[in-house]
Amino acid sequence: MTQPRAKIVLDAMGSDTHPDPEIEAAVTAAAEQNVEVFLVGPQDILQPRLEGMGITALPLHVVHAPDVLGIHDKPSEYSRKKAGNSMAVGLGLVKDGQADAFVTVGNTGGAMASALFQLGRISGVKRPGLTAVFPSKDGQVVVLDIGANTDCKALYLLQFAVMGSVYANHVLGIERPRVGLLSNGEEPGKGSLLIQETYPLLKSSSLNFIGNVEAKELFGGEVDVVVADGFAGNVLLKSSEAATKLL
Amino acid sequence: MTQPRAKIVLDAMGSDTHPDPEIEAAVTAAAEQNVEVFLVGPQDILQPRLEGMGITALPLHVVHAPDVLGIHDKPSEYSRKKAGNSMAVGLGLVKDGQADAFVTVGNTGGAMASALFQLGRISGVKRPGLTAVFPSKDGQVVVLDIGANTDCKALYLLQFAVMGSVYANHVLGIERPRVGLLSNGEEPGKGSLLIQETYPLLKSSSLNFIGNVEAKELFGGEVDVVVADGFAGNVLLKSSEAATKLL
Repeated sequence: MTQPRAKIVLDAMGSDTHPDPEIEAAVTAAAEQNVEVFLVGPQDILQPRLEGMGITALPLHVVHAPDVLGIHDKPSEYSRKKAGNSMAVGLGLVKDGQADAFVTVGNTGGAMASALFQLGRISGVKRPGLTAVFPSKDGQVVVLDIGANTDCKALYLLQFAVMGSVYANHVLGIERPRVGLLSNGEEPGKGSLLIQETYPLLKSSSLNFIGNVEAKELFGGEVDVVVADGFAGNVLLKSSEAATKLL
Repeated sequence: MTQPRAKIVLDAMGSDTHPDPEIEAAVTAAAEQNVEVFLVGPQDILQPRLEGMGITALPLHVVHAPDVLGIHDKPSEYSRKKAGNSMAVGLGLVKDGQADAFVTVGNTGGAMASALFQLGRISGVKRPGLTAVFPSKDGQVVVLDIGANTDCKALYLLQFAVMGSVYANHVLGIERPRVGLLSNGEEPGKGSLLIQETYPLLKSSSLNFIGNVEAKELFGGEVDVVVADGFAGNVLLKSSEAATKLL
């Protein structure tokens, strides 16, 4: 019995050098992975290139999106001012149930705003959380929020913890993900006022909360989900990248 | 003409394996650097070891501090409950003008609290800023606060910027230090409410303010002083350390 083939939408216009890397990725994925790919962008640009490559008989479809986003387009206005952009059209396929997931390397804020506009939020969820999966000593660690919400309330962090835990469980296959709260000290009383307010919420939740964690423990393999406000999470992400790049 | 010899106080009881590393450091510094060392700790412990090493004729003095701090002593209570501890006695030498600087590898919070208690703050400075000097591509970058103040006001960050700039100028010899504000995006409107409030204060100051900087730019050599609240600064410090350790 084979797994049902996942239907993946790929934004053909996301990268700085679009659409060539996206076309190459789409072809590779459709040829080598068990996926059906919907490549979204202007048909007059995409179709000739694919035909030039002489590719046939792949589960790969071009979906027309006439509007092209530029760096001067504001992320919050993508859907309103350029309704026919590749993010909007691509996310529409997910919304309508024609596809399972949407992939883009375009503007992060734009992708988030477009997803919010097209797909909305799960009922009860106050804020979307941007998530990154970091490598760790023994596996992987899910960190959120990494930049969507610079100023957070304790309730948002609690919800990030729930979403991160579900993600670690369903996507990474971790049985009962260990959830840590990013702080500048491990003791329960440590951290900013926000952290001190969030701690008891996590403690009394049904999550597998292991307490405060410091950034230095991130890669040690002792935690599966690290919860942070978007400002601290962004600093965590970018300083880790910068330090590894310096070396 | 020789430079005047600096008088340095060294806490003999700071490290986990005190006092041996401290004694070794004190002897090396007194022998090889142009410094006079005041080694502070219990005389009955320090004196026999130094005599056992057969060291004479070095500018190295033992200063008696009878009380030894343990891990269960609260940093905020060092000076009150164990007034004769090595940090208190050592900082007292600086306060009385007998020495120029105090060095310890003991508890950071304890050192800060003791310094505050003994030396106080510069007039007008609202909060002390813990400072770290990071390596960068071309030199060094001063980052503060790295953990003393988890919740900050814009005025504190402005003062950290002034202090960091003075430090970079006097200690690192940088002519007109470029000061950056740690944020999750470079544009002036980016960042948390605190960052947005701090930006105009720095902009209108006499500092060489270059705007918001992202953590990823920290090691690039384009900024000399990075200002952050103690929570974000601590995340920056520890995640950089953790990432380099993972590699």
